[in-house]
Amino acid sequence: MEAILGEYAITVEDIRKAAATIKGQVLRTPLVPAPRLSQLTGAKVFVKHENMQPTGSFKERGAVTKLESLTPEERKRGVIAMSAGNHAQAVAYHATRLGIPSTIVMPETAPLVKAENTRAYGAEVILYGETLYESADKARAIAAEKGLVFVHPYDDPLIMAGQGTCGLEILEDQPDLDQIIVPIGGGGLISGITVAAKALKPSIEIVGVEAALYPSFQNAIAHEDRPIGGATLAEGIAVKAVGQLALPIVTDLVSEIILVDEPMIERAVNAYATLQRTMAEGAGAAGLAAMLTHPEKFRGKKVCLVLCGGNIDARILASVMVRELERDDRIVSLRITSHDRPGLLGRVASRLGELGANILEVSHGRLFLDVPAKGVSIDITIETRDAAHTSEVFEALQKDGLEPRRIGQQCLSESAY
Amino acid sequence: MEAILGEYAITVEDIRKAAATIKGQVLRTPLVPAPRLSQLTGAKVFVKHENMQPTGSFKERGAVTKLESLTPEERKRGVIAMSAGNHAQAVAYHATRLGIPSTIVMPETAPLVKAENTRAYGAEVILYGETLYESADKARAIAAEKGLVFVHPYDDPLIMAGQGTCGLEILEDQPDLDQIIVPIGGGGLISGITVAAKALKPSIEIVGVEAALYPSFQNAIAHEDRPIGGATLAEGIAVKAVGQLALPIVTDLVSEIILVDEPMIERAVNAYATLQRTMAEGAGAAGLAAMLTHPEKFRGKKVCLVLCGGNIDARILASVMVRELERDDRIVSLRITSHDRPGLLGRVASRLGELGANILEVSHGRLFLDVPAKGVSIDITIETRDAAHTSEVFEALQKDGLEPRRIGQQCLSESAY
Repeated sequence: MEAILGEYAITVEDIRKAAATIKGQVLRTPLVPAPRLSQLTGAKVFVKHENMQPTGSFKERGAVTKLESLTPEERKRGVIAMSAGNHAQAVAYHATRLGIPSTIVMPETAPLVKAENTRAYGAEVILYGETLYESADKARAIAAEKGLVFVHPYDDPLIMAGQGTCGLEILEDQPDLDQIIVPIGGGGLISGITVAAKALKPSIEIVGVEAALYPSFQNAIAHEDRPIGGATLAEGIAVKAVGQLALPIVTDLVSEIILVDEPMIERAVNAYATLQRTMAEGAGAAGLAAMLTHPEKFRGKKVCLVLCGGNIDARILASVMVRELERDDRIVSLRITSHDRPGLLGRVASRLGELGANILEVSHGRLFLDVPAKGVSIDITIETRDAAHTSEVFEALQKDGLEPRRIGQQCLSESAY
Repeated sequence: MEAILGEYAITVEDIRKAAATIKGQVLRTPLVPAPRLSQLTGAKVFVKHENMQPTGSFKERGAVTKLESLTPEERKRGVIAMSAGNHAQAVAYHATRLGIPSTIVMPETAPLVKAENTRAYGAEVILYGETLYESADKARAIAAEKGLVFVHPYDDPLIMAGQGTCGLEILEDQPDLDQIIVPIGGGGLISGITVAAKALKPSIEIVGVEAALYPSFQNAIAHEDRPIGGATLAEGIAVKAVGQLALPIVTDLVSEIILVDEPMIERAVNAYATLQRTMAEGAGAAGLAAMLTHPEKFRGKKVCLVLCGGNIDARILASVMVRELERDDRIVSLRITSHDRPGLLGRVASRLGELGANILEVSHGRLFLDVPAKGVSIDITIETRDAAHTSEVFEALQKDGLEPRRIGQQCLSESAY
């Protein structure tokens, strides 16, 4: 094992050095038991809360390790990075803190909020190109022209060693783990954690997770040719090019790569919010999504989930949470149409009350094209205990002759609160 | 100080005993620095994450302390409590874990989810009465009839000592704090934390927070007569009757009580979600709301916020987060009405793209009553960088002769995602 570890881009000694460098500059995040996620998955789950870092992800570990390696001249000229996400924020935040000028190149298509956040951390933001690859070329060109140090998001031994400090902390806090589940983007985090964890505990299993739409490492390792691309909630790990330095480590030492689909990523984001009361971005929730996809692989084991990032847009999280309630059939919308205008709303509302359903929203008397001219239509969104209760409510209304029709999932306006 | 402390219902020794009792049964929650909340408030903020407890609140500390004090006979007969919230879940969860039967009485008006959650933790749930006070009478009647131990949510020395363990942990982890800010419901948590913290560090300031709609302690201590009642997001601290055992401790040793209004509680819930990436219920966010209400009282100080609970309904959190974006003028809805039907949508959408606004939702060609018969109306919800950008967009559309009208805040359906 020792011999093998020596052949890779980083060793546990590099990671120990990085740990000494970042101490006091990067949060030593808590590793906490998560009894409700344990109940959900059948494993004994611990969560490493990298989403508690100031910029919301583990990326600060690598960024600080790299920034602290610069010469005084390099610090003065500054750094440049390409990223539309967590790497950008981590580099901007710590460069500014250390008095190093930073430039971040993002694709023109990056969400407004991300550019704004990165500017707020003190970086100069340049919007260029349609994709990250065009942005990366631009960043390298500017780096060459102005003599800036290019901070790669993953394919750099200092970045990998920095991310590996997360692995040291995990095993310091919970040495008896059986498995660590790590989301894979370019491979910086998983390669660092793997080298650290395998050095401290050779028997530990490292499980990698990729979004099913971006199976880059799976393709490279299993010599497969799955299609890559598409819109994913886990944009933080939507990487097409595997890290060349990470690849041998992942190939040799990672037990398995699990691919997770979009509905499962959504479910995991929601489970973190409702059961662990914490915000996970899609990539951050990928580990839990893997447990939900293949619970049999983890049942009864002591498992650490690396919740690697929490930067999820408020609108998207809100939408995921409401959609999950709808999926559980606990929020349903129904339409009741009648000729018998007077008193209909009162009658329906009272009946729903008796049935124990909670009325969230009502639209009454709207001008629907499919309602007879003198009729009235009421749309009601209700909350029930569960799917069985929903069925009961529909049957009861049917018996009353109210003929409820289920309608498309409605959004919840603020009136629901 | 020592002499004074001796006169109260609990001493720091009681709290130390409670700490020994709950060790290994209740999570020793992390206390973490929160740089983005520090930036927001101008203080150096640390957050005690009681929302990470399995049932989502500090209530487990008191519940376990009380349950562990029972005789074998009492354990066999079981316990009863009255609560629609966190106390119910804490008692149910740990009673079941310890093999003690539990009964929880809730008002008939309690949200479905809370009754379901409490049942899921293994308690028998009895829905009785319109208010917590009627439920409490019922619970006491059942306790007397069946010989069950009544577990009071706050007015019990064992409960108070249990909650105080939170204070010991805070000062163990961060001895150089200047202030601890604690939400006040019945006073169990603040009285326990105060006795613990003042014993370890007499110079520390304890600041209490009440919802402005429920100023019970403020009334009792300042001999005021503010009205009490109303719907609050902080239902966890909406308590009308102060804890009689807590009152002398709060009166003598708490520096100040700050009242927080509903909009500020909402802002604090949102700040926890977006800046600290964690779920706070209204009561849990009250401490941060106090800092936002009176930042001058905390500026430059080392402050611990006790994030006492995270049990916020998913729908409510979603609504708070979206509303906050709307309040910041970063999500706005506008209506454009025109006779010039062909090509209008394309023209408007392209123009918005040029202006850097992000289109979230479009309703086109709906039958609005206020649109001329041959005209067309488009409602568009856009996301902008900030309020100034929103103004720019409106002015530019106006110049183009499109006459945008701002319309009411729309809800975001899942199509926005």
